[in-house]
Amino acid sequence: MAVTTSTSQPVDAPTAPPDAHAHAGPTHGYTPAKDEYLRRLRRVEGQVRGIARMVDQDVYCIDVLTQIAAVTKALQAVGIGLVEDHLSHCVVDAARQSPEAGAEKVREASAAIARLVRS
Amino acid sequence: MAVTTSTSQPVDAPTAPPDAHAHAGPTHGYTPAKDEYLRRLRRVEGQVRGIARMVDQDVYCIDVLTQIAAVTKALQAVGIGLVEDHLSHCVVDAARQSPEAGAEKVREASAAIARLVRS
Amino acid sequence: MAVTTSTSQPVDAPTAPPDAHAHAGPTHGYTPAKDEYLRRLRRVEGQVRGIARMVDQDVYCIDVLTQIAAVTKALQAVGIGLVEDHLSHCVVDAARQSPEAGAEKVREASAAIARLVRS
Amino acid sequence: MAVTTSTSQPVDAPTAPPDAHAHAGPTHGYTPAKDEYLRRLRRVEGQVRGIARMVDQDVYCIDVLTQIAAVTKALQAVGIGLVEDHLSHCVVDAARQSPEAGAEKVREASAAIARLVRS
Repeated sequence: MAVTTSTSQPVDAPTAPPDAHAHAGPTHGYTPAKDEYLRRLRRVEGQVRGIARMVDQDVYCIDVLTQIAAVTKALQAVGIGLVEDHLSHCVVDAARQSPEAGAEKVREASAAIARLVRS
Repeated sequence: MAVTTSTSQPVDAPTAPPDAHAHAGPTHGYTPAKDEYLRRLRRVEGQVRGIARMVDQDVYCIDVLTQIAAVTKALQAVGIGLVEDHLSHCVVDAARQSPEAGAEKVREASAAIARLVRS
Repeated sequence: MAVTTSTSQPVDAPTAPPDAHAHAGPTHGYTPAKDEYLRRLRRVEGQVRGIARMVDQDVYCIDVLTQIAAVTKALQAVGIGLVEDHLSHCVVDAARQSPEAGAEKVREASAAIARLVRS
Repeated sequence: MAVTTSTSQPVDAPTAPPDAHAHAGPTHGYTPAKDEYLRRLRRVEGQVRGIARMVDQDVYCIDVLTQIAAVTKALQAVGIGLVEDHLSHCVVDAARQSPEAGAEKVREASAAIARLVRS
């Protein structure tokens, strides 16, 4: 079926080039679970593409809205996971370095959490 | 620039086939603004792909979170627009047919709004 | 205790005069369920007072937060109920008067729904 | 009027006994800003009472909804403040004791943040 097939195409390839894993980038809170996050974000991306398809095919408004609510929740869930990983690693590590470093990271994390709650 | 280029790739082509506009589908609240909704949803899709890229490239957690909050808001804004179009057309039309038809559409719309508020 | 005392002053009296029910006020969407809404809002008010009490008695932060999330949901649920009642009565009635009257009410309701979704 | 009268009764007295400040309770993240939180929560409580009054006086639905959105935001802002204070004190302190203690507190805080985001 076209719909399912299109989301499993290699269409995402350009966004994840072969050398993407080659660089020895910095390590963040989410690094250990990076593949899991990428999998969830690819799924959200496919869901958003599915919503566009629903609109394009004149699917009933209410069904489109139901899907928008679901995808919004999925995206927020990714955000909540990233917050937990960030607190677990970056914030805890900073706190263990010094109270000041911990305080600085907490300020930054709190602002990010506030944006998430308000979104 | 790779980022922009990747979102303008023909990768989305399968989801919007050449004949997509050929079918004489039903008319819904959002039909008059369909192209505008498609444009916004393509943009959200590109933003979600951008978040995946950020994770893949080990961008700092807080910056990923900021982007997640922004995309969540963009998606909710699409939902709010669809609600308004649905009320303007489907609900008003039903109400003008009969109070019962109006009541039925209001029940359905309210449930969709509730899902959006809770998401 | 000063804080509690001040809130139990008769300061609210002027805003709810003895003849508050005497006026033949306008009828709104929520009028038929007014007592039910008042009951729910009194409950929310008591819950907010309970949160203040928790803070005053140095209850553990996480427990205070759990209660804040619950009360926020309860308040949003009242809002969702009011939206449904408003659509059912004010919007449907206006739509039945004229398409223009319906459109005007829809615009207004949509703005209120948007504020609720974003809150 | 019975409804309003009941809220201005000394019914709250038992829940905030005269000796409420007498106990040397535990110290939490929000303790230094306790008076400020109490002030904000009293204000939210008064706003909820104001919403009940609006309903009781048959104020127009849309105006009630605007106020509900505002109070929901005020309550979430209190929650966001408590999260920041909790991270600053309880979580940072635990992290400085041991990585395990930090991890435990992060798990708990993340669950509370998730409830707030979803509310």
